[in-house]
Amino acid sequence: MDHSPGDTRPHIVVIGGGFAGLWATRALARDDVRITVVDRSNHHLFQPLLYQVATAGLSAPDIAAPLRHILRRQRNATVRMGTVAGIDTETREVHLDDGDAIGYDFLLLASGATHAYFGHDEWARYAPGLKTLDDALLIRRRILSAFERAEASDDDAERRALLTFAIVGGGPTGVELAGTLAEIARHTLKREFRRIDPRQARVLLLEAGPRVLSAFPQTLSTKALRQLQKLGVEVRTGSAVTRIDAVGVTLGDESIATHTVLWAAGVAASPLARSLHVPLDRAGRVLVQPDLSVPGLPQVFVAGDLASLQQDGKPVPGVAPAAKQMGRHAAASIRARITGHATAPFRYRDYGNLATIGRMAAVVHFGRLGLSGAIAWWFWLLAHIFFLIGFRNRLVVMLNWTWAYWSYQRAARIILNNEERPE
Amino acid sequence: MDHSPGDTRPHIVVIGGGFAGLWATRALARDDVRITVVDRSNHHLFQPLLYQVATAGLSAPDIAAPLRHILRRQRNATVRMGTVAGIDTETREVHLDDGDAIGYDFLLLASGATHAYFGHDEWARYAPGLKTLDDALLIRRRILSAFERAEASDDDAERRALLTFAIVGGGPTGVELAGTLAEIARHTLKREFRRIDPRQARVLLLEAGPRVLSAFPQTLSTKALRQLQKLGVEVRTGSAVTRIDAVGVTLGDESIATHTVLWAAGVAASPLARSLHVPLDRAGRVLVQPDLSVPGLPQVFVAGDLASLQQDGKPVPGVAPAAKQMGRHAAASIRARITGHATAPFRYRDYGNLATIGRMAAVVHFGRLGLSGAIAWWFWLLAHIFFLIGFRNRLVVMLNWTWAYWSYQRAARIILNNEERPE
Repeated sequence: MDHSPGDTRPHIVVIGGGFAGLWATRALARDDVRITVVDRSNHHLFQPLLYQVATAGLSAPDIAAPLRHILRRQRNATVRMGTVAGIDTETREVHLDDGDAIGYDFLLLASGATHAYFGHDEWARYAPGLKTLDDALLIRRRILSAFERAEASDDDAERRALLTFAIVGGGPTGVELAGTLAEIARHTLKREFRRIDPRQARVLLLEAGPRVLSAFPQTLSTKALRQLQKLGVEVRTGSAVTRIDAVGVTLGDESIATHTVLWAAGVAASPLARSLHVPLDRAGRVLVQPDLSVPGLPQVFVAGDLASLQQDGKPVPGVAPAAKQMGRHAAASIRARITGHATAPFRYRDYGNLATIGRMAAVVHFGRLGLSGAIAWWFWLLAHIFFLIGFRNRLVVMLNWTWAYWSYQRAARIILNNEERPE
Repeated sequence: MDHSPGDTRPHIVVIGGGFAGLWATRALARDDVRITVVDRSNHHLFQPLLYQVATAGLSAPDIAAPLRHILRRQRNATVRMGTVAGIDTETREVHLDDGDAIGYDFLLLASGATHAYFGHDEWARYAPGLKTLDDALLIRRRILSAFERAEASDDDAERRALLTFAIVGGGPTGVELAGTLAEIARHTLKREFRRIDPRQARVLLLEAGPRVLSAFPQTLSTKALRQLQKLGVEVRTGSAVTRIDAVGVTLGDESIATHTVLWAAGVAASPLARSLHVPLDRAGRVLVQPDLSVPGLPQVFVAGDLASLQQDGKPVPGVAPAAKQMGRHAAASIRARITGHATAPFRYRDYGNLATIGRMAAVVHFGRLGLSGAIAWWFWLLAHIFFLIGFRNRLVVMLNWTWAYWSYQRAARIILNNEERPE
């Protein structure tokens, strides 16, 4: 689809319309280049709020905007919805699975990460992870259906298993899911069932390491743990999962009967990294140069979760602010290449770290400052509303949250595409 | 799941949580009865706005609310999410497909209607109809994907077929879909593509009868036709579809190449009607007595789209107000049976008929009054917001519509569960 034969501007192909790809594209808005953004979905996703869609607090369109719409006024950019099958760095072409090939002068690979099950891919069907809107709707369906099935069940053991929810992984996503699920069981659904008491639901957060939120200082991890326990979450640290199947989850010798296991434990790099045929780190990410280019491929850059880079002896984390910064930096590196200037090394600026736990419960860490509880929660709320793309979405999200806050209700408790009871 | 052995209150089972079933349940809130509402989805759906979800103006949860939540304070009602496999009127039991059986003293069958393809079930996969939220999300995905695929295509004929949209059926749903689709092509997507011009999309509305909106007076049909044409819709009346397949739609001798056909032509009664083993009308609906009971089955009532009833020589129409009125009447008939009183005949009160066409374009008909254009549109807007269940939804819908109105944007242009490009 390289249909601009008379166009001599350098053609930049950006794979992935997430934070890294989109921020790079926007940074090049005034350059004399052509940009093609390729993404397999039609939208940019505000991933930090994905757990709210999974837990029925927000609708899918509240946290997503069509890439075309975001870029409609950027005349040097075009969007191609499609799935990349491979990259040929010899011919400088991106191959799509529909047979199309897109030639590039510069390539930015920003296709991010996906779930990793540590060699246990058979766990995927029992323990869905949370990366896309479709993942979030699947998790929402599983959670809400478990309560429905428990209400209908006549078997005590089955009912207990249906009311047991296990979240694997004590990072920010796991903490958010566990805290929100505990609130749903204790408050949102309180009066709605006649045969079960949703407050008796067990929510387990299983973490293999010694503490939750290990990217935060020890004191904030401890505060997060107490806030989770106050909400009724059973936190098990040092608990490595050894098996997940249709009947439950196994931790060493202990088997826990549950029908709902959610995976928030591991991410793996997008498999597209392999098609570059360059050295990768253990997680499959590309070991980039300081200017974010790929060793030996000066016209190829990598940004976001797919880039592996050390700074001051620590890896740059796979978080949204790092992806945005890398995207902008990759754009600057490409511009330098085009104009014949030297590229500069990327420096990650850490503005802090936020994780929410529940209503009025969160932890925030900036430099030396650590906050927890209500003040951290307000901080988290404002930061997330502020960074949401699109004026309309911010308003709708604020309205939904205000409503949810006062009523303890969740606006999107709708089971869609009911897999368990097909027509 | 009939687990109240000590409970001597009459048990009323309501099949279907749509307008008829829900209004009947609410009407019995203060009666000394037990009510079980069975529905295969977890939500009540505000069906009159379903086309807005299909055309990406609203999110699925904006027009739906969990049945449990609506009924949470009605202590004599319980909700069972499940699919009814059959009804045994001998043993007075409702059988669910998960093997459960629910005994009843009175049964209200309000399972509504589904799409009918006039004996051409093979058309269903090419021409989805619009009855559930999942249907709406499927149609949304097909519409948005057609524009994406057209942008990627190098073949002129394929691009034209992808930009041709055929809607079969000129009733209110067909008119709403056609009008909104024309607006999307002309305004919403105007600047967002680089290779196609969405304004060149063709939107065809195919009606077998002599005019659109045949339930309205001739003058309003003509006004609706003009409003559709002004929006750019090609209306073909007297055009019976003879074939629908993967490459297009055939009308007599004419073949129209299109990848997107939407079905708004026919509805058929829920197949559950057959399990009563009583006479049905040609559309498969139950020929009910004037009090809405089933001939020969005095403890079984039918309300809503599934009930076939003549009034003053005309059938009671399959619209939301009729369903609500029948639901309330069936509740009164059941109450009369329980208390040993005579039941009264149902009378449909026709408060008028509304259909929207597009921005500032609608027709309204009450008694002798007919309105069209902007005033009819404002009337339609206020009526729909007023009747939406749930305070929060009304606010969100109003906000979305205000935004959509001023910006010509549609808030929910997100492709979910992308069937065409599976991972």
